[in-house]
Amino acid sequence: MDKLLGKLPFLLTHDGICRLEDGKLYILDRRKLPFSREYVMCETPEEAAKAIKDMVTQGGGPLEVALTAMVLADQKGFDLVKSAQVLASSRPTNRTMKKTLQAMLERRNGKSMENLRGEFLAYYDDCYLRMSVHGASLIPDGAGILTTCFPEHSFMLSLLRAKEQGKDFCVYVPETRPYLQGAHLTAPALAEVGIKCRLVTDAMPAHYMACGDIDLYMTASDLFLSDGRIVNKTGTLENAIAASYYGIDYYPFSLHRTDVSELELEYRSGDEVRRIGSQKITSDEIECLYPAFDIVPSSLVKGVITPEGVVS
Amino acid sequence: MDKLLGKLPFLLTHDGICRLEDGKLYILDRRKLPFSREYVMCETPEEAAKAIKDMVTQGGGPLEVALTAMVLADQKGFDLVKSAQVLASSRPTNRTMKKTLQAMLERRNGKSMENLRGEFLAYYDDCYLRMSVHGASLIPDGAGILTTCFPEHSFMLSLLRAKEQGKDFCVYVPETRPYLQGAHLTAPALAEVGIKCRLVTDAMPAHYMACGDIDLYMTASDLFLSDGRIVNKTGTLENAIAASYYGIDYYPFSLHRTDVSELELEYRSGDEVRRIGSQKITSDEIECLYPAFDIVPSSLVKGVITPEGVVS
Repeated sequence: MDKLLGKLPFLLTHDGICRLEDGKLYILDRRKLPFSREYVMCETPEEAAKAIKDMVTQGGGPLEVALTAMVLADQKGFDLVKSAQVLASSRPTNRTMKKTLQAMLERRNGKSMENLRGEFLAYYDDCYLRMSVHGASLIPDGAGILTTCFPEHSFMLSLLRAKEQGKDFCVYVPETRPYLQGAHLTAPALAEVGIKCRLVTDAMPAHYMACGDIDLYMTASDLFLSDGRIVNKTGTLENAIAASYYGIDYYPFSLHRTDVSELELEYRSGDEVRRIGSQKITSDEIECLYPAFDIVPSSLVKGVITPEGVVS
Repeated sequence: MDKLLGKLPFLLTHDGICRLEDGKLYILDRRKLPFSREYVMCETPEEAAKAIKDMVTQGGGPLEVALTAMVLADQKGFDLVKSAQVLASSRPTNRTMKKTLQAMLERRNGKSMENLRGEFLAYYDDCYLRMSVHGASLIPDGAGILTTCFPEHSFMLSLLRAKEQGKDFCVYVPETRPYLQGAHLTAPALAEVGIKCRLVTDAMPAHYMACGDIDLYMTASDLFLSDGRIVNKTGTLENAIAASYYGIDYYPFSLHRTDVSELELEYRSGDEVRRIGSQKITSDEIECLYPAFDIVPSSLVKGVITPEGVVS
């Protein structure tokens, strides 16, 4: 294993995402971080799909959970085609998970799901490492780097690599409502690996751009569309527009391009905006909206960081 | 009293902001809205200043609380100059409060603070009504109107007037972290007076602009600087940039211009970002930032709605 992978914060390690033990799948409950380390236990692929739907894990988490749930299905004799379907439909916008599940089915002759899982994890680790080489090269010494949501392996590895190269920088992390992944995951994960960061609310980044404190905007992406548009967590667009206004380059990370015809955006329940954890923030009569994703036009994207290099 | 004022939601009525009773000042605790209607009781101008500092009331609230606290000071024989000073310093960016307190002191010969308070309240009511004439004229029938934070009397009266004129519209309300004034105050106040609204998180407006659902952006302003810049609640800038990107006009409301030399921005404790109500959202080790205000460049402002008309 590349030693950079060994420096990842716990929640980005394979065991920190999910693990199979005694025929049960344990998924780290990211909703409880950083205050407690709890696992949601699943005994069937259906239960794993429900956990993904319920946001127990998100970002790059569902891919690894799906790979591991297929091993569970294999061991317990569940129908693999049906298992892959139910997992793929848990988050309709996640094309990487869907494609990987399809590929697992296609290659299953003569191979166990456990072997295939190992191959895919190694493949994605390699992709993340290659992306981090390009990502790190874009980070200037002394930079203020804005992100949105929890940008996962490629971003974190880019920062770890830039740090190894002796660069000093600070990450501005929007809290990322409604699920607060910035506050719950990104900032504590950065602190865990010794990277400076500052937490702000979701509409404060422009203020720090105006102050000259931000030099670069980097996020994960849920989809890199064939026409150049980027789909990512709601809020990504607003920051991309502000970055463009201040002449700050925006670089999302993406494993591969996705055909535009496969774009399917998820709208989640407004009740998830009405609450912060268990706390209600407005009256029941108020209509709340939750578009889970933004579409960023290609004109706002300086380049997309892929395993093969930066695509302009 | 103009009948439009009678249609204001409770928290914008004079008694709904604060009232003097048996030598005590009761300030409506906006932090508890919309779930309970509680008052913070103050017996001295110092206590009233502390309540303002603690965000018991905000926006246009501190002005009325300060006027009423001066009546309290007068009745109880406190030093009026000192009282005005401590009140004015409770929120350094609030120039209207500071100027009005100065004016009260200047005009105090032969007049009770109670009379002066009445004069100023009537003056501001008249200003709000005049602004609402201009505000309503800018609202097209069928409009989606974005705001930020709790835009108070002039905005609310503009909407009530536009509604009386038979116009149909919907207000998009960002929740406005960290204090959630959008969720706690704006959306419930709009619902109370029968105006359609939708609550979103702070970085979602761009998504709805991209969808073509927003036609107009209107906010209050804490300062309208002599060079044309607008100072308002943090988050106003990010939405103004997005609005400009989509060709959506931004009109803030302002009572008067303020000399640039008087610009004093308030930075509040990052601990207010670390918490949502009593709930902690990130680890103690994470640095949190809370710039209370944004400065919006004049190039992003289509016009400023003042009592005298719309200033371009």
